[in-house]
Amino acid sequence: MLVVMRHGASEDNIQKVIDFIKSKGYDAHVSRGDLHTVIGAVGGKVMDPRDLELLDGVKEVIKITSSYKLVSRIFKNEDTIIEVNGEKFGGDYVGMIAGPCTIENEDQINECARLMAQSGVKIIRGGAFKPRTSPYAFQGLGEEGLKLIRNAADKYNLAVTSEVMEINQIPLFLDYVDILQVGARNMQNFNLLKELSKVNKPVILKRGLSATIEEWLMAAEYILSGGNREVILCERGIRTFEVATRNTLDLCAIPVVKKLSHLPIIIDPSHGTGLRDKVAPMSMASIAAGCDGLMIEVHNKPECALCDGAQSLYPEQFDELYAKLKKIAPVVDKIMG
Amino acid sequence: MLVVMRHGASEDNIQKVIDFIKSKGYDAHVSRGDLHTVIGAVGGKVMDPRDLELLDGVKEVIKITSSYKLVSRIFKNEDTIIEVNGEKFGGDYVGMIAGPCTIENEDQINECARLMAQSGVKIIRGGAFKPRTSPYAFQGLGEEGLKLIRNAADKYNLAVTSEVMEINQIPLFLDYVDILQVGARNMQNFNLLKELSKVNKPVILKRGLSATIEEWLMAAEYILSGGNREVILCERGIRTFEVATRNTLDLCAIPVVKKLSHLPIIIDPSHGTGLRDKVAPMSMASIAAGCDGLMIEVHNKPECALCDGAQSLYPEQFDELYAKLKKIAPVVDKIMG
Amino acid sequence: MLVVMRHGASEDNIQKVIDFIKSKGYDAHVSRGDLHTVIGAVGGKVMDPRDLELLDGVKEVIKITSSYKLVSRIFKNEDTIIEVNGEKFGGDYVGMIAGPCTIENEDQINECARLMAQSGVKIIRGGAFKPRTSPYAFQGLGEEGLKLIRNAADKYNLAVTSEVMEINQIPLFLDYVDILQVGARNMQNFNLLKELSKVNKPVILKRGLSATIEEWLMAAEYILSGGNREVILCERGIRTFEVATRNTLDLCAIPVVKKLSHLPIIIDPSHGTGLRDKVAPMSMASIAAGCDGLMIEVHNKPECALCDGAQSLYPEQFDELYAKLKKIAPVVDKIMG
Amino acid sequence: MLVVMRHGASEDNIQKVIDFIKSKGYDAHVSRGDLHTVIGAVGGKVMDPRDLELLDGVKEVIKITSSYKLVSRIFKNEDTIIEVNGEKFGGDYVGMIAGPCTIENEDQINECARLMAQSGVKIIRGGAFKPRTSPYAFQGLGEEGLKLIRNAADKYNLAVTSEVMEINQIPLFLDYVDILQVGARNMQNFNLLKELSKVNKPVILKRGLSATIEEWLMAAEYILSGGNREVILCERGIRTFEVATRNTLDLCAIPVVKKLSHLPIIIDPSHGTGLRDKVAPMSMASIAAGCDGLMIEVHNKPECALCDGAQSLYPEQFDELYAKLKKIAPVVDKIMG
Repeated sequence: MLVVMRHGASEDNIQKVIDFIKSKGYDAHVSRGDLHTVIGAVGGKVMDPRDLELLDGVKEVIKITSSYKLVSRIFKNEDTIIEVNGEKFGGDYVGMIAGPCTIENEDQINECARLMAQSGVKIIRGGAFKPRTSPYAFQGLGEEGLKLIRNAADKYNLAVTSEVMEINQIPLFLDYVDILQVGARNMQNFNLLKELSKVNKPVILKRGLSATIEEWLMAAEYILSGGNREVILCERGIRTFEVATRNTLDLCAIPVVKKLSHLPIIIDPSHGTGLRDKVAPMSMASIAAGCDGLMIEVHNKPECALCDGAQSLYPEQFDELYAKLKKIAPVVDKIMG
Repeated sequence: MLVVMRHGASEDNIQKVIDFIKSKGYDAHVSRGDLHTVIGAVGGKVMDPRDLELLDGVKEVIKITSSYKLVSRIFKNEDTIIEVNGEKFGGDYVGMIAGPCTIENEDQINECARLMAQSGVKIIRGGAFKPRTSPYAFQGLGEEGLKLIRNAADKYNLAVTSEVMEINQIPLFLDYVDILQVGARNMQNFNLLKELSKVNKPVILKRGLSATIEEWLMAAEYILSGGNREVILCERGIRTFEVATRNTLDLCAIPVVKKLSHLPIIIDPSHGTGLRDKVAPMSMASIAAGCDGLMIEVHNKPECALCDGAQSLYPEQFDELYAKLKKIAPVVDKIMG
Repeated sequence: MLVVMRHGASEDNIQKVIDFIKSKGYDAHVSRGDLHTVIGAVGGKVMDPRDLELLDGVKEVIKITSSYKLVSRIFKNEDTIIEVNGEKFGGDYVGMIAGPCTIENEDQINECARLMAQSGVKIIRGGAFKPRTSPYAFQGLGEEGLKLIRNAADKYNLAVTSEVMEINQIPLFLDYVDILQVGARNMQNFNLLKELSKVNKPVILKRGLSATIEEWLMAAEYILSGGNREVILCERGIRTFEVATRNTLDLCAIPVVKKLSHLPIIIDPSHGTGLRDKVAPMSMASIAAGCDGLMIEVHNKPECALCDGAQSLYPEQFDELYAKLKKIAPVVDKIMG
Repeated sequence: MLVVMRHGASEDNIQKVIDFIKSKGYDAHVSRGDLHTVIGAVGGKVMDPRDLELLDGVKEVIKITSSYKLVSRIFKNEDTIIEVNGEKFGGDYVGMIAGPCTIENEDQINECARLMAQSGVKIIRGGAFKPRTSPYAFQGLGEEGLKLIRNAADKYNLAVTSEVMEINQIPLFLDYVDILQVGARNMQNFNLLKELSKVNKPVILKRGLSATIEEWLMAAEYILSGGNREVILCERGIRTFEVATRNTLDLCAIPVVKKLSHLPIIIDPSHGTGLRDKVAPMSMASIAAGCDGLMIEVHNKPECALCDGAQSLYPEQFDELYAKLKKIAPVVDKIMG
């Protein structure tokens, strides 16, 4: 941490800052400039910068060490590549996850699985426990849904990913799914993250609606810090003042994350836009921006879907899109499909 | 729901919208204007407006029934007043909750409880389980902390509130605290909300950092819908582009919420600003805007606090502030202290 | 406009709404549903929806006619294609504009023009009047700058675009430039827009930092309404809570605008990200999302630039990028270069 | 500026940063810590921090001198008090400005002036040139409006404030008004600000919808830097994701600005909320938070107003509010009315 003293701060002010820093177990390095004296605090454990800001004569306090370690490129420079059922995310690879928003019944999920396999998809998605804004909306089939998607996936040699909503559900998910998803609303459910850090399966961590990229990486750090190194970051739109789309997809998060972290980053253009006709252009844009994968909602009959049908692609739309995506990937030196 | 057809939409377009509405179990009421035909959908259960938006000829779809019911003034017009240990929130009453961010040890929490009681406070706050952005930061004393705050509170006849972070912790909290808090990050942890709906104690529901007021009320609806009618809403700042303060305290949420809902709304100016010298002006402003209570961080030695000391008031500052607040309340026809 | 009455609104309430609507010169169409009576207001000129909202018994007021006309696809369904110096924007075409942030001196702008021409660019950009946040920063060369860029452009058969900051400068710009730019800070400088509506040259209208897409289209409407039909919309990032990038580039604005309006939309990834290493991925993403053009900052010596060197590409980087962009365009059925 | 080098940056990296800093006319002060080497750049004029960020081995670059000088408390510690027609803003004083959104005709503005004078107001507001989002909306009476408000004000001994929209209008405004207003959309119209810096009358500078407090102070610096020291800052809401109100009034800007600057800050709760029934609570809150004045829309017949009637108070509402505000001011050691 660096403490910048105000122009004209007294020697007494400076000494009190030094004393405070030392009282917290840090070393203090003083550097006197023409305008400002700057005091570096080095080596301690945890100090709230605002405590320093409130001392007399302090102009500003600046954090210089990011709080995340294991997720950063400084800790590990090579890209982490995560492989599930032959599909790879990270490095030169762009993976694909597709399927319906929700598991509705046996016929629907079987038909979706059949269509996905036919399209060349290797990982199917589908919600069993649904986080719904309204207590009166359909909340998912629960364990029954997990069984149905597992059976459907097995029939067509697909891997499965689904969203886990709380600690109690983890054992169930380990029985049925190959990748566990943490939803945007749970990005900072730290107890859940800690439990997932002990799990032996990859985790997709969605970015919270108002989370900064730094907070998102810190949330990933929770999972890595417990021993699980297989985290896939998933951007799905942030909340802004714009109302034309459900959220604002922050595609620049792709190059930002790839510079800071070795973890793969994928995009969910379905939740990120909320509208079927925006999914294709945003998927194309994501690949062109260098993402490591996509998660797209596809439904056998979107007009009958119990949830989010409006943002689900028709199977034919998905096939057409997937074909185009495979043409864009090589232009940015990526391998897809 | 109202479906506004485009100028020039064909009869066929209109008929397909009507058919779709009926297929979802709604009645369709058609009203033909000079420019636009408008079709009302009445009586069904759940329909995603975006499904209608994607039909040909549809210009716009408008929701006209709010999804929340029990929290609304339409369901219950009189203010809900919640009383704990003689302190009232709602109606004409402005309640006060104060105490340290975190329970650190026996001496600290005893001293804080003594100071709060001496200041006339009847409900003490203090965190036992801390949601920390970094996995490497102090995570709270856990159950031990709850015991310590309970003992300290009993000694000085105080009620206790503390944040519960997940379902597993609820039984523990019921043993030790009088009001359970749900933090901003958990505002949409729907499973937690459902469990709290069965609890027989009041719940403080903090607004999420990027939650709209409607989503916040929907989250409260989860708690009420299970039978717990004692919810206190707590505004604690939303995330915006402004960086001078930690968050932007949305004080206009006070009159907005009070118009829509009968539930009491309180303000947390400590987290809402993140800076000690902003707490007093924002507390004053909150009372003047008509809030039903405040939750303020006070620490016996803020400069030694393990967490958020920079936003905690000194006991003398709190006493001075509390005296001023009591002068403002009557100007807005409220009773405080 | 549609006025939705509250459940239980009285006949008297309804009548007063009807009377108010008629007093403003509108017709009132009443439609009674089971839950809500809805009153349509048709045919008048201007009515503030909030006036209706404040009447007793009114639940909600909904605008159903967008305020923009000439910019909308309803008014003109075919894409507007704007051609300058053989470079086309809109329809199947993706145009390119490139050049330095600022005109610094004769040598610099000549060298930039030479490099741009060599790269196949047909329109050069360069600022003569610079809107600077600080009054103490370099404010541009003014008219001298316009002369220099015109001469340089003529030497290499380039067209010129530069930002006009106020009405007084328009005659000067008409002498020297081929496309006039309106900066983000001036998007709602309505007097300037009105004057530009009388101009016989294309106008690039940048989106304001906090402008919704609807407001942006309304600003374009100002220019079209005076007779100038050649407006190119330019997205350059909106302001959000994210701090890792200068702004958040809203690429989903591309499909949103293309659905609502016939006007071409281009992207400025240089200002949209503020960082050189983010310009290439965001340019690629923009083309893949279907934009009609790009405006990119390139400088012969970015490390010596007087302004925004950090977001300017080196000439070699630009060439490499341009080559890749030309490979992506055909995948989305667009023609570039 | 402080350049923090990455852990493990080479001597060559460090030397190149030093060379770059010196090439820009700054001195370089090196301070080597255990983890990071920090290089201070002192004494130069203008350097873009991003240029440094792009050098190899650089972790972060931190600005430590704010770009504003004349507006800061460092330059002038005592509060600036601005007096117009006996009404004072700043220091211990809370001033009041009230009147209609727009000057509509002679009768309306005369009646408004009479009512304002009767209520004890000394400065009337009223728009002559209206910045309207739609080119088809009422654009104000122009010069005729200025004459009408001047005459009305003179009759009742009121001072006048109105919004100037561009440089050409300044001479006209100097003839008719006592305080010139710069609207939110023009906060960064730097040419206008420069001209207003030469004017011999106070200027109210509204905060832009997406302006940070630092940018707002920089805009004020433009006015002060040309010689006009009478600037009143006016907060009127910022744009956020919340849709229940037109804007989010950032009342914490009051203590933030008062700490950084000596200039008075007033609040416009009418535009800040957009709804009549939110104006009173937000006005009360503003005074309690320590603001130096208010600007409130009042109309003799709000239901007939040509513009923004929905956010205008009825005269009786204003009187009742003003009486309450005068009771709150002394609690925060302020003098009002």
